[in-house]
Amino acid sequence: MLGKMLENVRSNCPLIHNITNYVTVNDCANIVLACGASPIMADDREEAADITAICAGLNINIGTLNSRTIASMLIAGKRANELNHPVVLDPVGAGASKLRTQTAMQLLREVKFTVIRGNISEIKTLASGSGTTKGVDADVADRVTEENLDDVIAFAKRLARQTGAVIAITGAIDLVTDGAKAYCIRNGHPMMSSITGTGCQLSAMTAAFVTANPGHPLEAAAAAVAAMGYAGEVAHGRLTELDGNSSYRNYIIDAIYNMTPEMLEKGANYEVR
Amino acid sequence: MLGKMLENVRSNCPLIHNITNYVTVNDCANIVLACGASPIMADDREEAADITAICAGLNINIGTLNSRTIASMLIAGKRANELNHPVVLDPVGAGASKLRTQTAMQLLREVKFTVIRGNISEIKTLASGSGTTKGVDADVADRVTEENLDDVIAFAKRLARQTGAVIAITGAIDLVTDGAKAYCIRNGHPMMSSITGTGCQLSAMTAAFVTANPGHPLEAAAAAVAAMGYAGEVAHGRLTELDGNSSYRNYIIDAIYNMTPEMLEKGANYEVR
Amino acid sequence: MLGKMLENVRSNCPLIHNITNYVTVNDCANIVLACGASPIMADDREEAADITAICAGLNINIGTLNSRTIASMLIAGKRANELNHPVVLDPVGAGASKLRTQTAMQLLREVKFTVIRGNISEIKTLASGSGTTKGVDADVADRVTEENLDDVIAFAKRLARQTGAVIAITGAIDLVTDGAKAYCIRNGHPMMSSITGTGCQLSAMTAAFVTANPGHPLEAAAAAVAAMGYAGEVAHGRLTELDGNSSYRNYIIDAIYNMTPEMLEKGANYEVR
Repeated sequence: MLGKMLENVRSNCPLIHNITNYVTVNDCANIVLACGASPIMADDREEAADITAICAGLNINIGTLNSRTIASMLIAGKRANELNHPVVLDPVGAGASKLRTQTAMQLLREVKFTVIRGNISEIKTLASGSGTTKGVDADVADRVTEENLDDVIAFAKRLARQTGAVIAITGAIDLVTDGAKAYCIRNGHPMMSSITGTGCQLSAMTAAFVTANPGHPLEAAAAAVAAMGYAGEVAHGRLTELDGNSSYRNYIIDAIYNMTPEMLEKGANYEVR
Repeated sequence: MLGKMLENVRSNCPLIHNITNYVTVNDCANIVLACGASPIMADDREEAADITAICAGLNINIGTLNSRTIASMLIAGKRANELNHPVVLDPVGAGASKLRTQTAMQLLREVKFTVIRGNISEIKTLASGSGTTKGVDADVADRVTEENLDDVIAFAKRLARQTGAVIAITGAIDLVTDGAKAYCIRNGHPMMSSITGTGCQLSAMTAAFVTANPGHPLEAAAAAVAAMGYAGEVAHGRLTELDGNSSYRNYIIDAIYNMTPEMLEKGANYEVR
Repeated sequence: MLGKMLENVRSNCPLIHNITNYVTVNDCANIVLACGASPIMADDREEAADITAICAGLNINIGTLNSRTIASMLIAGKRANELNHPVVLDPVGAGASKLRTQTAMQLLREVKFTVIRGNISEIKTLASGSGTTKGVDADVADRVTEENLDDVIAFAKRLARQTGAVIAITGAIDLVTDGAKAYCIRNGHPMMSSITGTGCQLSAMTAAFVTANPGHPLEAAAAAVAAMGYAGEVAHGRLTELDGNSSYRNYIIDAIYNMTPEMLEKGANYEVR
């Protein structure tokens, strides 16, 4: 099933509009290409609606947001909703500043999202309307572990039902739920947190997956999450003694580029609860 | 001849002002360094003219444009014209939004360009004033093939004469013409389209080549185009089974870094029509 | 001693707020992660003070500055001063445009810096209030050599005493001084100047080092400078015949990732004057 999701990205090659931060934007574009889709980045309000309209899906990432790009996020999100295009939200750093929290909450009110993907601290901030996110990483206190997994699943399912969006919480254990079913995905490698933007890359790739698989947002998002984690494992297996986080970054994108549906099907490590 | 163009970049080390998008800007800077020139990126209207004045050439790329940077493009372009500095235009995504098409047309009216480099859809948009560019990639319907090559050459020559600029249309077959002669260049590899920004990188490098070779814009642009394509071939030859588009991106810039005039002379695959 | 500085970064994992240019921002984030700290990039005036407050240190880099981000630099710098957080200034291109020179001078007047790191042309511009920086690289006429080393040390010590900041002048020979002692560091490799942003990366990493080592800004900055130079040597040793500046960029960040305090202690090549 997850392999099929990737297959559809490669055969449909959807064009994805990304409004995203300037830190990880290049890696986001390259990973969208690696999975078989095509990215376009455009964040000016004068063209946001036009670009959304020629694309098939939209990814909104609030890292390095500013007043100019926030306006564009809202315009693009609403236009995508009118066109019934899937829209992904990555609430980078929600909880770390009032601006990020408020922008994420405004986006939630004014745009209907297909998938919301973040770390546990960011997602908790969305659920409560305030938070204590430590920068762009999850708080240690918030971490998802085998011990609190049931509680986090219940929390994520509730939020999915409230928002109507698939909720993807990524970390040591990844959760993807539509409110009814939850995928618990145990792929990935701790060293992925030594690279900037693996989360941003995953959100961009998730937009490609849900766009290429209409009617299957849960499975498509789970496939993207599993693909990213599995790529992290494959890439880690390539590391030499001299390699570090920069080579690892390249190898992860390379692993997505070389991943076949069969490999993903076999490599994905998950259970459904 | 093309080798000599590269040699002059390495000996003159021109300083190139780039107003370019934030998606591929790092790769643009690194490839400008790789070919032997020196990049500076500056896009604020308060410093655009100053930076243009200390540089020897200018590269304007309209990807991720916004009202602030459009103003700077116009200021820098006019200042470069006053100083008789070469100016390259990369009309990224012209045809994909009204803003991009109008900005490209305004730049064409108000700035004299030495070289205009884009894919066939972008260049057709410039010629007609409107277009149907599919994002930042060329439309399949527009693709340059052996069958329509003569027509595309005639079209490009006409546009070169109208604009007074060397026109470089890159794709599976690359065309570079000044209205009289046309270089048809058959270097490169299809996998280059799996990397974001090979076009942007080429435009930045073209600015370095035309700046280091005053009086030879056609040959200099052709040399840059051939160098990029040949680097794509050399880099492809390095790929291992585990490598994908991210490593390929690094290898292409590496190949430019290691390219000698002799290698380019030998590796360039072109005919003049 | 320098090794201990790195050890403290790895054990304290400080969160560093970066307001930096969009050219090299990804490499800055990855090298901050590589040395053991955590980066957050945020440049909007509406969140600058909030983000500064949740971080432990601040890095201000004026490359690709604009009126929006200049305001944020001032807000963040003042907030960091109120909170007694270390602040690093990288005056990229000071002297290359009036805007950059004036912004650097305004920052110097309104913010107290812990470390100022730049090339010799940029630092001379700060000292005199005007300059002739050739783009973002040092003027040949300005270069630090064994011949003028004593004079440059005297100049740097004076500036350190005037500003109350540790002054780090990097180039073929690196100088780091607090006005009393000066570290002359002879690590690094000439090929580092073929990569965009090694200076920016060093400034971001310096912010991590001084933040993790309160009370030792001189030694912490010297350790960061030596670590960067030594990483340049280690990375150079890895280069194959086909590798160029793009692979070298990755290898340098990798080398920081793999550097132990013992390796830095042994690899650092310096004298104190």
